[in-house]
Amino acid sequence: MIRVICLGSSASLPSSKHVPSCFAVKYGGVFLFDCCEGAQRQMMKYGANYGSIDCVFITHLHADHFLGVFGLVQTMGLNGRKEELKIFGPKGIKSFLESVFSLKPLQPAFPIVVKEVSSGVVFENKLFSVKAFPVKHSTNALGYALEEHAKIKFFEDKARALGVEGKLFGELLEKKSIKIGRKTIKLEQVTFEEKGKKIVFSGDSMYCDSLVEAAGGADLFVCDSSFSDSEKELALEKKHLTALQAAKIAKKAKVKKLLLTHFSHRYSDRSILVKEAKQEFSNVLSAQEGMELLV
Amino acid sequence: MIRVICLGSSASLPSSKHVPSCFAVKYGGVFLFDCCEGAQRQMMKYGANYGSIDCVFITHLHADHFLGVFGLVQTMGLNGRKEELKIFGPKGIKSFLESVFSLKPLQPAFPIVVKEVSSGVVFENKLFSVKAFPVKHSTNALGYALEEHAKIKFFEDKARALGVEGKLFGELLEKKSIKIGRKTIKLEQVTFEEKGKKIVFSGDSMYCDSLVEAAGGADLFVCDSSFSDSEKELALEKKHLTALQAAKIAKKAKVKKLLLTHFSHRYSDRSILVKEAKQEFSNVLSAQEGMELLV
Repeated sequence: MIRVICLGSSASLPSSKHVPSCFAVKYGGVFLFDCCEGAQRQMMKYGANYGSIDCVFITHLHADHFLGVFGLVQTMGLNGRKEELKIFGPKGIKSFLESVFSLKPLQPAFPIVVKEVSSGVVFENKLFSVKAFPVKHSTNALGYALEEHAKIKFFEDKARALGVEGKLFGELLEKKSIKIGRKTIKLEQVTFEEKGKKIVFSGDSMYCDSLVEAAGGADLFVCDSSFSDSEKELALEKKHLTALQAAKIAKKAKVKKLLLTHFSHRYSDRSILVKEAKQEFSNVLSAQEGMELLV
Repeated sequence: MIRVICLGSSASLPSSKHVPSCFAVKYGGVFLFDCCEGAQRQMMKYGANYGSIDCVFITHLHADHFLGVFGLVQTMGLNGRKEELKIFGPKGIKSFLESVFSLKPLQPAFPIVVKEVSSGVVFENKLFSVKAFPVKHSTNALGYALEEHAKIKFFEDKARALGVEGKLFGELLEKKSIKIGRKTIKLEQVTFEEKGKKIVFSGDSMYCDSLVEAAGGADLFVCDSSFSDSEKELALEKKHLTALQAAKIAKKAKVKKLLLTHFSHRYSDRSILVKEAKQEFSNVLSAQEGMELLV
């Protein structure tokens, strides 16, 4: 299972209860999507080991989405981290972060590789890939789609009927075809491909086709929901989404679950936003710090 | 009364419970002494209005002492602050902060004046002055002493016996001498000077004479107490103080109250440090987030 932990659910202004955007994905490592001020403490609080972070994916260069990187890097350094940390983000992030990290009081004690990305696969490991896609905000902004690789599953009965038993399963997976007696068994005869899970982070965005497209069929769609419908003009002006608009995108993109996040500080009670979203899309939740979803 | 609120009590590594150095002084405004990551949320939690901050006094350029400035400045800007913010700190702080603030994603929306200071009075208003003094740490580091101005108090009986009544108290204070009938009453005849309160922040330091001297007679001495006596070699190596050493300084400097702070993360229970300090100095407390002291 892929664990998605909400570390921060508020828009740019933090409060005593909430911090800005930050999600941790735990799946063969820890991967951060945005990194608000105080992200390291949120990780300590909510069971995402900051020492294990492989990559940080920053959606855009508004301070509420990246400020936590500096403290995180200092703490990792104090704890003796030697491994490289990869930070992905939109155009401009490389010169910005490299300028900050070149200043003595913020110099990292280990290598940091900053990668500017725009669209397409930006990261891949054995378990999943991460695609960036452009969204529409008041600055150059990205969303990210984490896509688990398809899994090869056996039709067990069929395989066993052909004599595939015990270690032969592994052998067949590795070699793609094996001989059992005089018969050659090919992998595709006894397996099928199960689609991997897909988790999409909108970052900060107003409505745009690229977001609908990128969210297509997501198992979990974590979406900007800064405002209620009564503030839709403000949402448009600030280039954010209302909860209702997020739900419309979720519906259009046929996602399985919608997680609203990035709530303006004016909503101390966020149930109104969930209620509005439910008019369009039933499987909706509001993010809150410490919430963990299994995908 | 001067209110001193502990916003952060840990050494460089935060934990889920504690954040690094940050104290707010509320006295005719809000004044921060160090500003750890997340300082703005600590202020929101513990009743120190971040919008009212006049000055931030940074003791040295280790990240745990200044990282919160960036988020604070962003939030103040989002809330429409127009007034100048003064940030004081040791040599190097001006070029460092100006470099950071010149980067577009961290540009402040209001004027920030960074002042490099070393020793002597660095700030003064109607109520108090702040003196910087050098301490001894692994980098160029300062402590700060907040000294309330002396107050002129009346010997009320004596004043009334000379005919000073009602509005004449104010008039005498303002004019320094007044005539009542044929008598001239001079201010110094009927008043005495009451010494102002003194609060001293050590910043990060090992033992040094300048710290003892600066702490002299303080009503409240907020002192580095990173380690227990069993780690005194480590304290020396890292150029910090043990609780026992802090207490010895408090005793030598004849302070009234000692507040231990900047605890290494290895002390989840800090009572051992208080216990050790009490061997030398009885009026001692350990800082914790949200603690408010009236001086």
